[in-house]
Amino acid sequence: MEKTMEKIVALAKARGFVYPGSEIYGGLANTWDYGNLGVELKNNVKKAWWKKFIQENPYNVGVDCAILMNPQTWVASGHLGGFSDPLMDCKECHERFRADKMIEDYMQENGIEIQGSVDAWSNEEMSNYIDEKNIACPTCGKHNFTEIRQFNLMFKTFQGVTEDAKNTVYLRPETAQGIFVNFKNVQRTSRKKIPFGIGQVGKSFRNEITPGNFTFRTREFEQMELEFFCEPDTDLEWFAYWKEFCVKWLQDLGIKEEEMRVRDHEAAELSFYSKATSDIEFLFPFGWGELWGIADRTDYDLSRHQEVSKEDLAYFDDEKKIKYVPYVIEPSLGADRVTLAFLCGAYDEEEIGEGDVRTVLHFHPAIAPVKIGVLPLSKKLGEGAEKIYAELSKYYNCEYDDRGNIGKRYRRQDEIGTPFCITYDFESEEDQSVTVRDRDTMEQERIKIADLKAYFEKKLEF
Amino acid sequence: MEKTMEKIVALAKARGFVYPGSEIYGGLANTWDYGNLGVELKNNVKKAWWKKFIQENPYNVGVDCAILMNPQTWVASGHLGGFSDPLMDCKECHERFRADKMIEDYMQENGIEIQGSVDAWSNEEMSNYIDEKNIACPTCGKHNFTEIRQFNLMFKTFQGVTEDAKNTVYLRPETAQGIFVNFKNVQRTSRKKIPFGIGQVGKSFRNEITPGNFTFRTREFEQMELEFFCEPDTDLEWFAYWKEFCVKWLQDLGIKEEEMRVRDHEAAELSFYSKATSDIEFLFPFGWGELWGIADRTDYDLSRHQEVSKEDLAYFDDEKKIKYVPYVIEPSLGADRVTLAFLCGAYDEEEIGEGDVRTVLHFHPAIAPVKIGVLPLSKKLGEGAEKIYAELSKYYNCEYDDRGNIGKRYRRQDEIGTPFCITYDFESEEDQSVTVRDRDTMEQERIKIADLKAYFEKKLEF
Repeated sequence: MEKTMEKIVALAKARGFVYPGSEIYGGLANTWDYGNLGVELKNNVKKAWWKKFIQENPYNVGVDCAILMNPQTWVASGHLGGFSDPLMDCKECHERFRADKMIEDYMQENGIEIQGSVDAWSNEEMSNYIDEKNIACPTCGKHNFTEIRQFNLMFKTFQGVTEDAKNTVYLRPETAQGIFVNFKNVQRTSRKKIPFGIGQVGKSFRNEITPGNFTFRTREFEQMELEFFCEPDTDLEWFAYWKEFCVKWLQDLGIKEEEMRVRDHEAAELSFYSKATSDIEFLFPFGWGELWGIADRTDYDLSRHQEVSKEDLAYFDDEKKIKYVPYVIEPSLGADRVTLAFLCGAYDEEEIGEGDVRTVLHFHPAIAPVKIGVLPLSKKLGEGAEKIYAELSKYYNCEYDDRGNIGKRYRRQDEIGTPFCITYDFESEEDQSVTVRDRDTMEQERIKIADLKAYFEKKLEF
Repeated sequence: MEKTMEKIVALAKARGFVYPGSEIYGGLANTWDYGNLGVELKNNVKKAWWKKFIQENPYNVGVDCAILMNPQTWVASGHLGGFSDPLMDCKECHERFRADKMIEDYMQENGIEIQGSVDAWSNEEMSNYIDEKNIACPTCGKHNFTEIRQFNLMFKTFQGVTEDAKNTVYLRPETAQGIFVNFKNVQRTSRKKIPFGIGQVGKSFRNEITPGNFTFRTREFEQMELEFFCEPDTDLEWFAYWKEFCVKWLQDLGIKEEEMRVRDHEAAELSFYSKATSDIEFLFPFGWGELWGIADRTDYDLSRHQEVSKEDLAYFDDEKKIKYVPYVIEPSLGADRVTLAFLCGAYDEEEIGEGDVRTVLHFHPAIAPVKIGVLPLSKKLGEGAEKIYAELSKYYNCEYDDRGNIGKRYRRQDEIGTPFCITYDFESEEDQSVTVRDRDTMEQERIKIADLKAYFEKKLEF
């Protein structure tokens, strides 16, 4: 079976996972809308993150900060000064490119390996390399480019009546800064002692020049970020702890070993403030892509905010009687990306005898958009089946389907990844039992209606 | 007891419900951040909406659409043309005002009642009224104003490299339009037949001139909207159905009769496309405020999108063999507003004998940010208490507190609205039981540790 993005995008659209955004108006450059199944899948992924990183974790609490922040935030974080892409136009065909991407593509095509990342090069270094190698415009093939200039990736808008500098605000490019500016507030109100973490799930916006690969890189996207505050010198231990924690979270939700790799950044690649960074990557049909960035950010963020805001953001340890600016470990995960990874990972086409093939999404039950399909064998059995559907719907997202033959209904539930189907048949009224079919094994077992709740509670645990 | 906004804002900040946004930078005009308890409260409110409006409801499914949409959407919806506030400057002191608000304030102060709303007046009518009554500038007291001009409330930004008209996009001012443009997609992928509804929870943005009253009116806010599609001529029935459904949802979550009223719009007040509209209002400490707008929007929205997009958005009823553009009932709820309403409604100060007063938040258990406080009577009892905390944390957001005397710990949990506290005491090891205290009655009962899960499942049902 060949797993291609074309197949996955087509299934996503056909079954209500993801539609192109504003589709009736011809779309809007790489925006996407989650449909009736997609919203459930993505919400389940966010819930699974919150459960393990916040609810069950004794160290961490959550916050939910505004997308619009005081612009001083972006002065302190460096986003106003340095958060930009190197842009270049072709003077012949007037296409616009990211210089770093063009160099990376050239290197990949020509099998050239480098130490570190092109990201870190200066405009001049990139310009010289492009000239030296005589790299051609990917659109028209000529070699005649403008100078490279830096383009800031933050979306800008105006709050208030006049569109001037005084009223300029930005859509946050990451959720992390909302956590940093609230470090003291949360520490005070939660009464947490270091080490502790603050997590947030929410939308961020980056005016990317070249978004792409379906929902992998979009200008509007959702993040699940944790900022974990610890004592200096304990940071590398906690870095290792959270890296392992993240890998386990993915594995527990069904990401297979061969689809995942952890890439530790080499010294040359690290941001100047970072002591260690690792990426967890997933093997998408289009290649390896970053899901999770885990970084030891030292005391850079809080120190910068302290500098710019003049507020004291240091922490006083009242047992050790020492005061310090905490170090930060940041595991930062893209909600849309990891949702796409789960979708790609789950996709399968299986031969099931006699040349028959079924498309099936092997989602972990915790993230499956529909947990239970309730299928009366005949429309005449509606009353009893509907009762079960109503009862189980109190706890789980269920689907009721009485249309078409039972085999086709199973196939449809397989294709949307429903882990369990209940068949209510002509004996059910008498023996007060139903048949429960397992999506993956296709095996069936007879279960008492009265035991269904306990049965699924166990099966759907995470 | 006097319930004031000052008290509620102070408690919200002290306990981690809501902080001023970007506070270390002096804030950003009326933005707010939800803290460690606020995020749980608001998430619970959103979950309670999703459970009753989507998960358990056999008619409805959800979506999650992009905030950035193709601008043609706002042409069709009327937001680009007509979504504006009437603005006016004082020529003396250069303060800026909303003319309609100024007239409404004047009327209220002078006990003048009118039919319908000032909203519907033309600029000329407002200007004439202000001159006629010689209404003074609220800031300097003079009467010397500029002409009234319309100011569009949509936040504007630029997608792509150049800041020109071609790249202008808007932050959605409501989530509803994402549903309308996807009507056909969702109907196809969910295989729903009319009547059915599509719900969405998400951020919207309005560049309000005068935001205020804490989180009641903010420029960035979250909505929970349902668009319910039905056959023409069945609309008024469904309008009544959803109005009742919304009222029940609020009552089930503890909103008291005397804090709530339903205001049916009179004919003169209705939007030109609406057959019926009702507001559900809540009595905040600052007065009555709208929580929920429920509107019969007829076929206006889908017809407009059909006109502008040239796509066929009609529905074919294959039993009745008729084709029509569906009518829409829209119950639209502000997530921040209703969260604030629950906070205000829950707030109480109770005398509990001997002149002692406790502050308590009587949240419905389903929305309480912390469900269970686990309190070992002594730090020595940590091992057993922590085991209970870890076990219950799998299902609920719990808090562990072993600091200070038990009475103070109860007070603290009362003040954040925790419905149940478990006390693990010196007998617990032996009798494998704990004491469970009820927040509202302050009564205690002895429960077997092994029965806790089932006990709370029943108590926390919604």
